[in-house]
Amino acid sequence: MSLPGKLYVVGFGPGSRGDMTQRAVKAIEGADLVIGYTTYTDILREYFPDKEYKATGMMKEVERCRLAIEDAEKGHTVAMVSSGDSGIYGMAGIIYQMADEMGSGIEIETIPGVTAASSAASILGAPLMHDMAIISLSDLMTPIDLIMKRIDRASDGDMIIALYNPKSKKRTGHLQKAVEIISRYRSPETPVGIVRNAGRKDESKIITDLGTIDHDDVDMFCIVIIGNSQTYVSKGRMITPRGYEI
Amino acid sequence: MSLPGKLYVVGFGPGSRGDMTQRAVKAIEGADLVIGYTTYTDILREYFPDKEYKATGMMKEVERCRLAIEDAEKGHTVAMVSSGDSGIYGMAGIIYQMADEMGSGIEIETIPGVTAASSAASILGAPLMHDMAIISLSDLMTPIDLIMKRIDRASDGDMIIALYNPKSKKRTGHLQKAVEIISRYRSPETPVGIVRNAGRKDESKIITDLGTIDHDDVDMFCIVIIGNSQTYVSKGRMITPRGYEI
Repeated sequence: MSLPGKLYVVGFGPGSRGDMTQRAVKAIEGADLVIGYTTYTDILREYFPDKEYKATGMMKEVERCRLAIEDAEKGHTVAMVSSGDSGIYGMAGIIYQMADEMGSGIEIETIPGVTAASSAASILGAPLMHDMAIISLSDLMTPIDLIMKRIDRASDGDMIIALYNPKSKKRTGHLQKAVEIISRYRSPETPVGIVRNAGRKDESKIITDLGTIDHDDVDMFCIVIIGNSQTYVSKGRMITPRGYEI
Repeated sequence: MSLPGKLYVVGFGPGSRGDMTQRAVKAIEGADLVIGYTTYTDILREYFPDKEYKATGMMKEVERCRLAIEDAEKGHTVAMVSSGDSGIYGMAGIIYQMADEMGSGIEIETIPGVTAASSAASILGAPLMHDMAIISLSDLMTPIDLIMKRIDRASDGDMIIALYNPKSKKRTGHLQKAVEIISRYRSPETPVGIVRNAGRKDESKIITDLGTIDHDDVDMFCIVIIGNSQTYVSKGRMITPRGYEI
């Protein structure tokens, strides 16, 4: 009988090799098998070409987790990978849930990474210097009314808002609705930063504002950051001051 | 005349070497000078003993930034370091503000890191799988009423809440006030995770709940994560489900 394996749940950050933590690199290098959504394994194949990969499509999260846990139970060291931080809208939660459900006793270690909001912020300037809300506009598993309630409360609290999954092919109107709600509390001049493919080869950014945002500039590969009432733009950088006397 | 230098604003993550990104390691290794708050330079001296360091005390942020910019203007490559992500309550904002104020044309690059919420979450299990608010309880530069309004709105929106700077020697009552506000919206059984010195040698964690949290367990080295209405504890792990059908 083989020894039980180990499952690493690895967040590899925005996508560039340099933005991976050393723990993430070590976990992937040491794994017998790397499992993830096809887009992610395609990125990692370039950095770690000699590893064995298993990829599954989008929305196959449960299947992917089962595969990862079963492989670890056979005695393998498995790295379940996702971009950003595995602990923020990542795979960590469902892995723990599945392991419980399957009665699996394998060792699981979550390796945190640089989340998309951090990565996008570093490209825009310094928009996240104050209290903020991270909200996903995907209503696949969350009622849209609850999402919009959160947008409303975060706006009322003058929190910076980082929107994950701002759009998909099927969901095109949520961002507009969110901008309408935020505009009830903030001026049309409030800076809005849009970062597409943060940390990847075709990275791009746009700094606009609540009143003139062009919704066509946003797709599923974007993170959108909406400033609070103090956020301003200087020399092409979006900055939220924190109150230091300079 | 020397060429203008470069200033890297580096977030080095929770504190362990493994949790640093490769970009952060490279920026520090390549720097002529590493500048930061004493606690941070002490951590980095251990990993990079041969570098030259300049340390300043707490609350000396403006002075520290001026030093960093002036050194870069002399043609040096400077790494301004802070723990976590340099872009979330970090040094990125004030560096850009100071550079503007000083009319400095030096090149500035922000290198994002793993923020404290991500690090603490990975130690607790998977509490941040859904929409969340990151709120600092430090009222040094933010009116306490605004902080508590944000706690209220985040609670009403059923967002997970990650509290940074939950306590200091002078601020001992803010956490209790925050817990009182959150308790208006969430049951006493709502899981609360407290992580002290996340990612450092003497790391520790406590999982408790809103009704029985012992405020003496929390100090300035802690991050506190309060679950949403769906968060539960299983096998010592704090988990917020995201709605997958398992």
